[in-house]
Amino acid sequence: MKKKNLKRKKKIVVIGGGTGVYTVLSALKPYSADLSAIVTMADDGGSTGILREEFGILPPGDIRRALIALSNSDNKMLSDLLSYRFQEGVGLTGHNFGNLLITALHRLTNDFESAIDEAGKILSIQGRVIPVTLGHSKLMAELESGEIIKGENNIDIPKHDGRLKIKKVWLKPAADINPNARKAIMDADLVIIGPGDLYTSLIPNLLVRGVREAIQKSKAKVAYFVNIMTKFGETNNFSAMDFINELEAYIGRGNLDFVVINNKKPSPSRLSGYVKERAEFVDPKLPLSGKRSFMPITADLVRSKGLVRHDPMKVAKIIQMLL
Amino acid sequence: MKKKNLKRKKKIVVIGGGTGVYTVLSALKPYSADLSAIVTMADDGGSTGILREEFGILPPGDIRRALIALSNSDNKMLSDLLSYRFQEGVGLTGHNFGNLLITALHRLTNDFESAIDEAGKILSIQGRVIPVTLGHSKLMAELESGEIIKGENNIDIPKHDGRLKIKKVWLKPAADINPNARKAIMDADLVIIGPGDLYTSLIPNLLVRGVREAIQKSKAKVAYFVNIMTKFGETNNFSAMDFINELEAYIGRGNLDFVVINNKKPSPSRLSGYVKERAEFVDPKLPLSGKRSFMPITADLVRSKGLVRHDPMKVAKIIQMLL
Repeated sequence: MKKKNLKRKKKIVVIGGGTGVYTVLSALKPYSADLSAIVTMADDGGSTGILREEFGILPPGDIRRALIALSNSDNKMLSDLLSYRFQEGVGLTGHNFGNLLITALHRLTNDFESAIDEAGKILSIQGRVIPVTLGHSKLMAELESGEIIKGENNIDIPKHDGRLKIKKVWLKPAADINPNARKAIMDADLVIIGPGDLYTSLIPNLLVRGVREAIQKSKAKVAYFVNIMTKFGETNNFSAMDFINELEAYIGRGNLDFVVINNKKPSPSRLSGYVKERAEFVDPKLPLSGKRSFMPITADLVRSKGLVRHDPMKVAKIIQMLL
Repeated sequence: MKKKNLKRKKKIVVIGGGTGVYTVLSALKPYSADLSAIVTMADDGGSTGILREEFGILPPGDIRRALIALSNSDNKMLSDLLSYRFQEGVGLTGHNFGNLLITALHRLTNDFESAIDEAGKILSIQGRVIPVTLGHSKLMAELESGEIIKGENNIDIPKHDGRLKIKKVWLKPAADINPNARKAIMDADLVIIGPGDLYTSLIPNLLVRGVREAIQKSKAKVAYFVNIMTKFGETNNFSAMDFINELEAYIGRGNLDFVVINNKKPSPSRLSGYVKERAEFVDPKLPLSGKRSFMPITADLVRSKGLVRHDPMKVAKIIQMLL
């Protein structure tokens, strides 16, 4: 693939999980940047959850998505294969092929990071995919009602009353930063957090001991991409400012250099598809008063059609500005 | 990989299944021959059997072994990965990763041969792997007692009295030759049959309608590699002549040009490992009397240590002589 040139080759670290990381990495891949994806190890649902439990491995799902986003393989089928989810078979239904690949490679190499490296070779990835921690922890949440929710999947797909606010989240047991994640953050020019589910994809990275400190010590600029839509059970009714306040509570005030907010509201017909899942457009307006330690950047970031998500091209343009 | 030169680039077709095909293909890969592996679609045991039943696909196991044998990928891990068998997990235990790869690719391409082609690309194979038929059949056997055994796996791992001779085998329903298999046989300079389990890996190919005719019509020389050891429940007490007689009953008398027989008996200590599975050294002596339509070739073909199997280098030398 021909690479467009940024002014000079910069080191960019993307921190998150889920489809948000996929979007940002896909956006950056055409540029000749040095890319690292640091991904959450909190996922415990679906195929990933079964593999965690049965194989005792770290969760492969977010690793897989980042690997696919960074793949430079000419073989398009390889990406499709890694995303493929079995729909049949007593034992196989619901398992994702890429997750099984990482699991098998773990057994062959006896090491999670080696398994990721081998999967990266097979996919000819550009950059690195780094688990934020090599520790095995469960994500915990306390709701405003005092109720404790155990496990990322139970927070993500709320079985509780989704209108209740999340008071705080933590890891049990506490987990320490993966030295490779620390090094990537320390060496970075730019750290991008999000977009992504606030409590289940982004903050679980910041809960890992040493991540916040690495971000503080690093010379990197830090940019947070606020979500375009709220998520029922997690960020119900959140405005952009609510997202920022919560993220700052975990990353530490003063650690965000840029906050990137979408200001383009999609058409009512596109938003109507989100009524069922009780997701709403995030109000981009920040309060006029108050001291801010970050620079807000508002722009049209939404895809022009389809799912209401960040548009990789628009995201790439903003990131070029930040470097 | 640097290729040694045969006198000129010849088209070689290997027909069989199981580890025998793997041995012959591995033996031939260093040479610049045009290789095709035609493999049986009769397997219905283990991981393959489950995938056949649950996904309704043709059996991937023998395809996988041939693909690995033909892989030219520099990435050794890729071959290990395709051979990896899950040892854990309620739904995954016993499944072979390569079988899952072929199954997922089948679902993505909706076609068994396309799935094999895509797997071949991922493994950078040299040559082609061709299912002998695209029809779904079960291998059936009638024992000398009159008992009917249904399914390849039930013949292969005998639940019946393994001392009983197999009277005949057939496919139910009858299956027709894959046009690509027919073309490969018709275009070949040399067709190699075996080594391999006589009734469960070799003859199932010859039972497919059109295979015997293609072999008869082809200008190719045909060589049969007789097994080194008997197999309890299948070729109990068989001499080399018994193997040849049975194979000729299915391929048709006069269709074998060469029969290659190992004449080196391994040491008693190596053979002692086979007592438990009731396998014995195949007597290589052919009767002195009688008219033969084939040329017998006897040589030391056995590996110098380890499992009593054909040695790929020794096999390659013989094949060079036959071309």
